[in-house]
This record gives sequence, structure tokens and C-alpha cells, in this order.
Amino acid sequence: MSDNTFGTLIRLTTFGESHGPALGGVVDGFPSGIAIDMDFIRSKMARRRPGSTTLGTKRQESDEVEILSGIYNGITTGSSIGFIIRNTSQRSSDYDAIADKFRPGHADYTYQMKYGIRDPRGGGRSSGRETSCRVFGGALCELLLREEGIEIGAGVVAIGRTRASGYSWNPPFPPPLYAPSCPEYEEMAEEIKRAQSDQDSVGGIVECRVTGMLPGLGEPTAGKLDADLAGAIMSIGAVKGIEFGSGFRSAAMRGSENNDQMRIDGGRLSFLSNNAGGILGGISNGNDIIMCIAIKPTPSIAREQKTINLGMENTPIKVEGRHDPCIAIRAVPVVEAMTALVLADKLCIARAYAR
Amino acid sequence: MSDNTFGTLIRLTTFGESHGPALGGVVDGFPSGIAIDMDFIRSKMARRRPGSTTLGTKRQESDEVEILSGIYNGITTGSSIGFIIRNTSQRSSDYDAIADKFRPGHADYTYQMKYGIRDPRGGGRSSGRETSCRVFGGALCELLLREEGIEIGAGVVAIGRTRASGYSWNPPFPPPLYAPSCPEYEEMAEEIKRAQSDQDSVGGIVECRVTGMLPGLGEPTAGKLDADLAGAIMSIGAVKGIEFGSGFRSAAMRGSENNDQMRIDGGRLSFLSNNAGGILGGISNGNDIIMCIAIKPTPSIAREQKTINLGMENTPIKVEGRHDPCIAIRAVPVVEAMTALVLADKLCIARAYAR
Amino acid sequence: MSDNTFGTLIRLTTFGESHGPALGGVVDGFPSGIAIDMDFIRSKMARRRPGSTTLGTKRQESDEVEILSGIYNGITTGSSIGFIIRNTSQRSSDYDAIADKFRPGHADYTYQMKYGIRDPRGGGRSSGRETSCRVFGGALCELLLREEGIEIGAGVVAIGRTRASGYSWNPPFPPPLYAPSCPEYEEMAEEIKRAQSDQDSVGGIVECRVTGMLPGLGEPTAGKLDADLAGAIMSIGAVKGIEFGSGFRSAAMRGSENNDQMRIDGGRLSFLSNNAGGILGGISNGNDIIMCIAIKPTPSIAREQKTINLGMENTPIKVEGRHDPCIAIRAVPVVEAMTALVLADKLCIARAYAR
Amino acid sequence: MSDNTFGTLIRLTTFGESHGPALGGVVDGFPSGIAIDMDFIRSKMARRRPGSTTLGTKRQESDEVEILSGIYNGITTGSSIGFIIRNTSQRSSDYDAIADKFRPGHADYTYQMKYGIRDPRGGGRSSGRETSCRVFGGALCELLLREEGIEIGAGVVAIGRTRASGYSWNPPFPPPLYAPSCPEYEEMAEEIKRAQSDQDSVGGIVECRVTGMLPGLGEPTAGKLDADLAGAIMSIGAVKGIEFGSGFRSAAMRGSENNDQMRIDGGRLSFLSNNAGGILGGISNGNDIIMCIAIKPTPSIAREQKTINLGMENTPIKVEGRHDPCIAIRAVPVVEAMTALVLADKLCIARAYAR
Repeated sequence: MSDNTFGTLIRLTTFGESHGPALGGVVDGFPSGIAIDMDFIRSKMARRRPGSTTLGTKRQESDEVEILSGIYNGITTGSSIGFIIRNTSQRSSDYDAIADKFRPGHADYTYQMKYGIRDPRGGGRSSGRETSCRVFGGALCELLLREEGIEIGAGVVAIGRTRASGYSWNPPFPPPLYAPSCPEYEEMAEEIKRAQSDQDSVGGIVECRVTGMLPGLGEPTAGKLDADLAGAIMSIGAVKGIEFGSGFRSAAMRGSENNDQMRIDGGRLSFLSNNAGGILGGISNGNDIIMCIAIKPTPSIAREQKTINLGMENTPIKVEGRHDPCIAIRAVPVVEAMTALVLADKLCIARAYAR
Repeated sequence: MSDNTFGTLIRLTTFGESHGPALGGVVDGFPSGIAIDMDFIRSKMARRRPGSTTLGTKRQESDEVEILSGIYNGITTGSSIGFIIRNTSQRSSDYDAIADKFRPGHADYTYQMKYGIRDPRGGGRSSGRETSCRVFGGALCELLLREEGIEIGAGVVAIGRTRASGYSWNPPFPPPLYAPSCPEYEEMAEEIKRAQSDQDSVGGIVECRVTGMLPGLGEPTAGKLDADLAGAIMSIGAVKGIEFGSGFRSAAMRGSENNDQMRIDGGRLSFLSNNAGGILGGISNGNDIIMCIAIKPTPSIAREQKTINLGMENTPIKVEGRHDPCIAIRAVPVVEAMTALVLADKLCIARAYAR
Repeated sequence: MSDNTFGTLIRLTTFGESHGPALGGVVDGFPSGIAIDMDFIRSKMARRRPGSTTLGTKRQESDEVEILSGIYNGITTGSSIGFIIRNTSQRSSDYDAIADKFRPGHADYTYQMKYGIRDPRGGGRSSGRETSCRVFGGALCELLLREEGIEIGAGVVAIGRTRASGYSWNPPFPPPLYAPSCPEYEEMAEEIKRAQSDQDSVGGIVECRVTGMLPGLGEPTAGKLDADLAGAIMSIGAVKGIEFGSGFRSAAMRGSENNDQMRIDGGRLSFLSNNAGGILGGISNGNDIIMCIAIKPTPSIAREQKTINLGMENTPIKVEGRHDPCIAIRAVPVVEAMTALVLADKLCIARAYAR
Repeated sequence: MSDNTFGTLIRLTTFGESHGPALGGVVDGFPSGIAIDMDFIRSKMARRRPGSTTLGTKRQESDEVEILSGIYNGITTGSSIGFIIRNTSQRSSDYDAIADKFRPGHADYTYQMKYGIRDPRGGGRSSGRETSCRVFGGALCELLLREEGIEIGAGVVAIGRTRASGYSWNPPFPPPLYAPSCPEYEEMAEEIKRAQSDQDSVGGIVECRVTGMLPGLGEPTAGKLDADLAGAIMSIGAVKGIEFGSGFRSAAMRGSENNDQMRIDGGRLSFLSNNAGGILGGISNGNDIIMCIAIKPTPSIAREQKTINLGMENTPIKVEGRHDPCIAIRAVPVVEAMTALVLADKLCIARAYAR
């Protein structure tokens, strides 16, 4: 089965392959009466589009969104919002040489095993191009969240062996690296360039923070906020791990260190730390949500690798074409989008129970 | 809202509080004609029950399951399987002294913010006791998975600052530590005892592996196997992070290192490594699934901490009573159960599309 | 597959067979802070329980509900509400003689075909006894709806060939017939008695009206209010048809007759008729919801009928035991309950989008 | 909320307004490896499109479907199938005169109440034009069902006061009336013409039958086959009632008449009647499914009616423009489509549990 619908009340359903005529989808359950700021949406789309960063793929797509329904005179009507994004820069011939080979680290083999058929042009449905639709849906959701003062920002905090340090958090972080300003900024960029010149690729870590959070979002036990965020973000291609707050570090900690103690000062609650990353028992506590996300190196590399082909024979493969040497940087707006989708849905659910 | 239903075709819905009369739930969509091995189920329940390990809580519960429907003459009928687990060892008076205080690191504050009311006895719905129902549902699902040769095993691989090394993987791992045999076994146990004698608690890491996997499980893009596993496992209380395969390490790697190259030998496919942790593009590749899960230290500690009360005043708190000094060890069977629930559901979906 | 979960935000999941130890379920997503009036709930349960009417089955069940979670000090906590209803008056030996025969008009054959196995005691899961759980869930939902002034009432308006006329609508309608006062009341009761003395059964029609409706409930196009009500009510055993407002009569009408024209008088909107039955475009218009529901005659009759057995041989069958000669009357509280479940869920969704 | 997704495994999500640029949607969870017969799909679309019958609207739309994904070299890949249908014959000026008036019998008022905003051009989302997307999804599903020998046919069996009699069932029934051949055929057509010349409209009844059914489809108790069919068909605009088999007539029957007795002859099971309409206990019994559906008269009529406007003032209204004088005839392919969507989904679920 394929399943391309995210969300409970606000739902995003998507379709489209890397080299088909268009991608697109439906945003359903979106509230009526919201003014749609197309400049904001375009700015979000531009952040992710191929060609947005000099450190990314050479493919150029404008990722122009055509909205087909659900908006009347610039205002949402409450009806389902259909949209498409035309592909314009396909170069399917890039894939002729490897059409019958399974690229290591790619979904070629698993799609073939699952569906018994596969669109070999550029990854088909498993291509990162599908995330353009997520960014559109996420941008709509951000408009909702902003009404409540909730702001989402993500940035690259590690590339390969180089980890950012001492940075302050003031998103949105610009290209080419979508990283906060830090002493390691240039070295992180160099990691990418070196990988590329080695006909290789490199991984990275994306951090995402949500500020202005309301307490009370999340539905225990099966719809916990951290569980749904983890599921949504893990569904982005190339993501291999996620942690909240002190995350894996908390495993090495004592309770007395890790617990976020609480304090009232002048009628205002504060937590003395944020090891929880803003979520306790699957419900937001009002503190900033903090997540770290591990992104594997792009599997498409020009170096020769061992693989097999459709005929189940051993064969070498070199994946040439136009690939991002480090997919982590273009994952930044996608992480923001998936976070927005989950939070807007949870916000909407919370409103149903407000009193 | 509360949402306590996991799954698409095979679904587990649960209820119950730590100090109420009973916990329980419904397993729905379970196939008919499956012989229910009650000894197997009891052994799974026994692994998780309070009192199962000398390194855990002093609370003693037998966690006897009463099955109320869906099984006739020992065979599943295909109808919904209702079950309850009576609480027998409540000692609600333990909570009298702290009933109006929000325990740091607990869900007390977030439940109060979300629902405007809270059952203060032992954590109510946010208590780890709810996982008993997950273990029951998971045990049923394991019976299904075993028909296909799929086996799930989890074990503790780190406690506090002590990480297991050089272990071989032969689950199920027994109490007291639910860890593989390794040079650090005793030191891991000592970490727990030291934390306890310090009136403190400590975190840990659980590893989970699935062997005998079929390729083709998982539903891109919104129901990817890793995304659904991440969501299911992150929904277990105290889990703060999860990674698949090389996980966070992959972020520091090159594509040429991280890609799992493929080889046919004697007609049999093998991957030359398993950095993917058995999942590519959200679909299983037939390789073992490997996950690492970060578990925070138990928030309930007898040491004095700073907090606030219902009246929004500052107050110290000491959480006394019967608590696990390290919740990671009792999380082991729960991780196995959630993995089983996801995989059985995905298996069932895959069967719908088999040809 | 079996699927026993109704609803989107407020969800009822049920289990239990006619002759098993207990039925029960989980009400999930129910708002917190609602005082639970147990007398009201018991009165609803009593309306449906076997033995509630002299015109029904001789089986006597008290249908005592044991609530296991989700309520603390008489107030809902927002967590899932687990409940069970013990069976106390099983007489499974009634079914020994027909255990391997498929009762005509029953689900025996279809369950056997679907699941390859069947609990032959009293209909197992397909028994009307499962509706006790729906009535519990519905009663909780009615408590919510009453906060908004929404009231649900159903009554029998036809038995066999006798149709009530000239009745006024003042529910709840009492046993034995659960019908409004009308000239045909006695004749309707006689239809049932005659059928029973003929070792036969008889069908009937239930009308349901909802007053005090809010406009705006219902989610086009897949969650329309009338569609969801139709689905929920059609899921009650023995229901074979449903219509809204002028229903099948509208098929014979002109638009100029059937359209409900509108009028403002003293600032108050009124519709000049209610052929729509309170729903337009799948959304409530504030007018009363009016539904008519066709209930087939009870399939269990003592008369000899032709059927086949598990061995696929022809055989006669006489279904003896304790059956309702007319199931329509005991369907009344179940229709009310399913209506309440749908409306409370829709109300909750509407609140999520209120501004 | 709007909710535009039908189905569990095979899901259709739609969008689009009558006078927007395009309608469209996503078919998700559709099996891979199915050859798509575009001629078949076009023939289905052509049956419903405006202009398909001389007894319908004068609006002409080609309803050309552009498929954007999920099909590669004419074969489904298992990925989500995106599609759009451009509107080409909008004449929005038709609505200028009534843009601020609520048309009686329409969803204008309820959309305004629900969403606080409304697209006044031709009904917006509540227009029958949205059903074009359902017909596309249904046509795909019919391709699946045909592999199993399941065939769906619907036809008009009553218009206004004229009911077809003595017809034999050999669908597909052609325009202009989409009715089986019968003595009343011309009179039914006359009912429509008379209504039209009276500046009025008229209702009708559609019958739908499914032949070649498999036993075992349907998921008790919340996903019963008849319940899901009722919900899906009731979600079509203008449907006001539905019944299965003997339906409302069963309410007047005795059990001994209404029960479908069973017989084995030469190893083959037959039912001696089909009052159940092919469904018992919410599960198909292998007999033909038979449904009757009440369609109200088109609410748009040129006659003057009383209504109110956005300013909540009384006003007369005449709905001019290009309307179907009897929507029942164009509902025929939509009923077929919704039936196909439900059955294909249920078939897919049944396959998951086949052994």
C-alpha cells in the first residue's frame, strides 16, 4: 500500500514523482477565513527548491505552486485546497544507464520488492522532490500557528565530522548552509565541497526549535506530541534518527540532572532547564520544543559501488547526474514544514476541547 | 483529546490508570484462526510486570490478563478481543503528600494544563502501568509474526555512563538487567544501585533488533516503516530519542561508507553492511531492523527538588514511594511489544497487496 | 477484519459476544470536566436491556456497567473511559441443537465465510447484545449534547402493516412499545403478539428526531452529517433502510414542493417546511433532524425453515430460545445512542473550528 | 472541518469547486501492476459529464482527466495517483444576481453558517461537479473488481410519480434516461420534460445492483458493508434515502417471509430469495447486492421562491442558469462509482485476511 496522508483534522495528502509531469496534493480540514499570504508561501517553497543553494543539486526548478481550490478572493473557504507543482527540469536520460540497477542506499530495491514495479526515473515517488508538497502544506500551517505566536525554525548544526558550537538561535537561517552563524560555518561548507570533489556525499544534523509554544498540545497515549513529531519527521527521506531535548544524552544522566525543575517568579512559570525539549508525557509544557535530527549522506554518489540489477546479477554502479552532495541542508525547510503540519493539527484538536 | 488507538488494520485501543480498578483494552482487526498460546502471553506479561526484576520497583502486580471476547476454544474468531488487567497493589496514600504538587519531569503539569483536571494517584493515565496493555497486544502480534519467521528482541545496552561492548545478540535477555551478556553487565547493574542509594535515578539505552524480516513492509510516504516504528516507540513514556541503523553516526559519515552495497552469492542477496537498519525509503529491505532508543532517568526521585503546586506557588518536593530507579530495563518488553504491533499491522497490509 | 471503532475525535471501540463473559469497550477522546450522571446512564441502559419490555425477549440482563477508568471523583479526566458489562443470563445450551446450522436471515453464514470460524452461542459478536456498549457510549455523548441544548428522541412509528398516525412528538417514549401515543398503539402491540403466537416475528419503523440543533455540523464531502448518521445507524443489526426528511417521498416530488423556503421574522430565521430533515449539503441547518429507519423482522423464529449446515448439507431448522418477536422496539435506544455518538463527535469537530 | 477522504486501504481524496480552475484528487493505496484502460475510464467519465444526456444541464464539459502520477507505461506503480479535471465551461455571471441570496434546498446557507464564507459561483464545493472526481476514482476501482468478476450497474427506476415495472436488468443503461427498458420509459422522460417546462424539477429513484459478489466483504461492527455503502452513497448530493434488499418493505413483513432460506443443489448454495440485498450482519453473502436510493428534485429552479439573503433580509429568488431538471439520471454513474470505491476497499481488506 502507499499511504500519503498526514494528520487528523488538518490533513495533507500528496502525490507525484520526480520525473512525472507534476507533483501536488490536497490540504484538507484547513480552517476557513485565513488570508493566504502567497509571498510567504513562495518564500518557503524557494527555500527548498532545487537550485536554492550553491551547495546543492544543479537541477533548477521554480517550484511554482498552482492552487486549484479552497481559496476565494485570497481567503480560505474551509474546503479542500488542491494544488499542483509542475516539474520543468526533468532530465530522465540521466537514469538510462542505471535504470535496471538498484542504487545502494536508495529505495530502488525496496520499491521493487514491495510493488513489483518501479519508476526508475530519478527515484520516482521516493525522490526528495515529493517534499515540495510538504513544504507547501507546512507553509499554510505556519500561517495558522503564527496567529497563536508559535514560530518554527530549523538549521543545520553539523555536517560530517564538523559540529557547530556556540551559536545563537535566530532563524530563518539563509543559504547556502541554512546554519546559524558559528565559528564552524566555513568548515561545514568545506565538508560538503570536499565530499563533492571526492565524488562522494556527507551527512549532517538538523536542529529544530519551536518558540512561543502553548502548553497542552498532544494526545496521549497514541497521539503524543513527540511521537507524532517523530513519525512525521522520520518520514522525510534520509532521516535516520531523532531526539528531543537532552535526547540520547539523557540516557547517561541522573534524574536529578535531567528533571526540569519549576519556579514561579512574579506569577510567571519558568522551567530551570529544558532537558525535556518542551514535551512531558506527550504533551507540550509551553517550553520551546527542541529536536535534533540525523540526516544520512545522500546515497547517490558518482563513485563506483557494488550492487545488483533487476536480473539479480552482480554489477558495479556509478550514480551520475545532478545530486545534492549533502541533503541535510535542503532538509531544513522540510523539517520546518513537517513540524508545522503536526503542530497545526494538534492546535486544531486542542481548540476542540478548549473551555 | 486523548487518543489511545494504535494501528491501521490491527489496532490496539487501551485504557486505565495506575491506581484505578483496572487497565485494559481492545485488540481489533486481529486475524481469525490463530491459536492463542497463553503461556507465551503470560511470559511476556511477566517480563514487564512490577516486581519482575530486583532492580525495579517494589510494587508487586501479577498482571493477570482476563480475556473477555474474540477467542473461542483457544482460537481467535476474528472479532475484537477485549481484555482487562486488575490493579491489585495500589497504595494511593503514597501520593497524599504530593497530590497538589507537579513532579518535575512528570506529566503532572501538562495533564493539568491540557485537561484542567488530573488523577494524582501514581501518575494516573501517564503512569508506566498503561504499558501492560501494550505488552498484551504486542504478544498477540508476535504470535502472528512468528508464523512468518519474524522474531523481535530488545535489550539494555547502556545504563548511565556505562555502555555494553562486544556483546552477541541472543534474546530474550533475562532479568535483572534484560541486557546481553557483556563485560560491563555488573557495572551497569551498579549504576542503578548507586543511583538508588543516592535517592536518584539513571537513564539508559535499549537496542531492538528484528530478525527474519520480509522485504516490502512499510507504506510511503506517510506510513513509512521507520516513521511508524519511531512514532510507536516514542509514545512509550520516558523515551527521548530513537535512531535506525547507523542513526546519528550516519550524520558524520560519507555516502560511500554509509551506503549498504549489495551482492548476490549463490542466488542469495546480501547487503555488505547494515547502516540502514533494515529500512530504505520507509520499506523493509529484508535485513535485520536495528533501532537504538534513549530512555531518560525515572523522574520520580526521593531527592528534594524545586517545583510548584496547583495554587501556582513555589514548593519543594520529594517523591517517595515505590519507583524504578532505572526505567530503561522495564522498557525492554514494551519496546518489543510496540515493534510487534507495528510490524504485524504492516504485515497484514502487505498481505492485502500480495500477488 | 473486524472494525469496532466509531468516530473521529470522540471514539467508541467495543467488544464482546452474546454468551461470553462480558461485553465492553473504550470511549476515547471524550472531553474532560464533564460530571457523569450515573442515574441518567443507568436509565439509558435500562431502556435497552433484555427484559426491559414485556414485548421483548425473556432473557433478563441487568446490564450493569462497570466503569474502569477515565472518571475521577465523578468527573471525566479526559483520559480513555474503559467499561465492561458482564453477561449473567447466558443459556448457551439453547444453541446446542443448531450450533452447526446457519440460521436464515442471520450472520451465521457470513461470519463463517469471512472468518472460517464462528462462535455459535447466541450469535456471538453479531448478536444484538453488542448494542449495550453503544448505548453506554451514546449516553455519555448525550450528556455533552445537552450542554448545547441538543435533545435526541426516537420512537416506533410502525409495526408490520400498522403505521402510527397523528402522533405528537414528546419523547422519551416508554415501554412496552417505545412509541408515541397514537390511535394505532394497541394494534401495533397486537402485531407483535400475533407474530409471536404464530412462532414468527415482525418488522417495524423507528423515527428519530433531534431538536435544539445547531447549524454547521457535518464535514463535506466524506464526513457529511447525513452520511455519517446513515452509516452509524445502518451499522445497527437488522436496519435495512434509512431516510432523511421527506426521504423516499422526495423522489416523487417537484423541487418547488420539496425545497424548504426560508423566512426571517423578528430577526429569527425559519424554514417554511422541513423536507430536508435538517441537513443540507451534509451540514445541519439548525432545523430538527428527522430520520426514518426500517428494521427487518427478527430472523430468529421457531417456525421450521430451510437451511444448510456446516457440512454444506440441506437441513430444516427451528430457532428456539428467547428472542424478541420484534426487534424494532429495542432498537429505539440504540438509534438514539448512535445518533448521539455521531452528533457529539461532529460537535467536537465544529468546536475546533469555531471562531 | 472539511473531510474529503473516502476509504481505509484504497482512499480517494478530492478537491475542487464548480467554477474554480480545476477539480481533482488523489487515489491512494491502489494496488500496483494494474493496467489502466483509459478508454474504460473515459467512458465512465463521459457518462456523468455535463452534456451527456439531452435531459440534463446545458453546460458542456469534456471532463478530460489528466493523470499526474502513479502510472508508469500504462501500469499502476502502487504510488498515489494524482489527477486533475479542468473546468472549461464556467459561466460565473449566471450567479451574479443571486450571489448574496441563499438558494432554498441548497447548501448555501449551511456553508455560510459553517465556514463564515462561501464561494457563490455555482455552488462552489457543494456543486455536483465534485462528483466527477468520484467517478474517476470509482472507475479505477471497477478495474480491480472486474478481476474478481464483480460487476456494478445502476439505473433510474422512478422519476417523480412514475415507477418502472417489469424491467430486466442488463446494465449499463444508456442515456438519455440511464434506465432499464420498461413500459414506463417514455413517461419517465416526460416527467422530466414537464418539470422543466414548468420551470421546476423532479426527483427520482436509482437502483444499484452488484453481481458476481464474493461472500465475506465487510467489517463488523463499525465497518459493515451496508453501513459503509450507505455512508458513501448518502454522501452524494441530493441523496435522501437508501435501502438494501426489501428495505422499507421488510418493516411490514414477517420473519418467515423476509428470511432468505438456503439450499444446496449439486454442491452449489443458493438463497431462495434476496430480501437481505446480499448482506447479512454487515458482511456480503455472495448474493447480488441490491440498493435503492432516493434522489430529491434539483433544488435549483427558475420559479420564484421565498428566501433570505446574507444581510438576513427576506427576498424572492429565481435560480436561473443551466441546471439539470432531474439530477437522478446523472447520479447513476456516481452511485456506481461510490459502490465501486467501497467494494474495492473491502476487497483489499479481505485479501489481507485471506488464508
